[in-house]
Amino acid sequence: MEGEPTRIMMGVNESTIKGYPHASISSRGAFEWTLQKIVRSNTSGFKLLFLHVQVTDEDGFDDMDSIYASPEDFKNLNHRDRAKGLHLLEHFVTRCHEIGISCEAWIKKGDPKEVICHEVKRVQPDFLVVGSRGLGPFQRVFVGTVSEFCAKHAECPVLTIKRRADETPQDPVDD
Amino acid sequence: MEGEPTRIMMGVNESTIKGYPHASISSRGAFEWTLQKIVRSNTSGFKLLFLHVQVTDEDGFDDMDSIYASPEDFKNLNHRDRAKGLHLLEHFVTRCHEIGISCEAWIKKGDPKEVICHEVKRVQPDFLVVGSRGLGPFQRVFVGTVSEFCAKHAECPVLTIKRRADETPQDPVDD
Repeated sequence: MEGEPTRIMMGVNESTIKGYPHASISSRGAFEWTLQKIVRSNTSGFKLLFLHVQVTDEDGFDDMDSIYASPEDFKNLNHRDRAKGLHLLEHFVTRCHEIGISCEAWIKKGDPKEVICHEVKRVQPDFLVVGSRGLGPFQRVFVGTVSEFCAKHAECPVLTIKRRADETPQDPVDD
Repeated sequence: MEGEPTRIMMGVNESTIKGYPHASISSRGAFEWTLQKIVRSNTSGFKLLFLHVQVTDEDGFDDMDSIYASPEDFKNLNHRDRAKGLHLLEHFVTRCHEIGISCEAWIKKGDPKEVICHEVKRVQPDFLVVGSRGLGPFQRVFVGTVSEFCAKHAECPVLTIKRRADETPQDPVDD
């Protein structure tokens, strides 16, 4: 007598370690926390919707090790971006299958905060989970984070999961 | 094999209808939403912790219909405030007993956003639920809401539940 499962949308992003496409610490933390504290043993009561937004770089030259000399090079780049995104989502989908919780995953391109809110409007999940790096009070003043924007603007309840201080990598490049 | 229940703290406040102490639309909405979308049929997996913060009015004269002429008058006022707060919490505790979900409820005085974050630190819930009136973009600029403050500063994940536009009362005094 549970009716339709609760549909949880999760915004997931990549770690910034160069050349190593896996989920960020905050994305993995938010996912595992949601399983442990919300889903618990009630796997049939929930469905997870993973959205990965790939940031579009306006000038297209964020990968400084590569040389782009022809339109074909850009096509390959798009191919590689897509492969990286799929690899990221594979982590979450695999975990869901292990646990026996149904899920969907997809990739969009654009400004993460705008795309997430747009996808909420389109997909209409019951709520949205966003991980946050948990910046200090000084950084907060200058950084309008994705999580803050979504908590204000997304047309559904928003669960913001800050990373604990002891989960912050020593080197920010490993974030 | 579920282990300890997930402890959900909920900040609940009063409707501003004068002389009618019941829970605000956003508090009741956030509570019912949490039961329906998070707890679902798994009542033994969760425990609800209701915190009601009574705003301390600095000059002590928010109730303009009354005359305070002696220390005794203030004592009665405190008594009445306390009765109103208990009446508010009774609504939530009664609902929990009906459903069979364990709960606790308590009252604190002070600035709601500060007190909620302080109580999170003390009680260490798994997450905090805060309802929000869902102010429009114009109002947002000037109003630092309790929900926004808590999403940033509370030392636990925070679920922000905005009221839907169609739940906004026509007369703001009924809010």
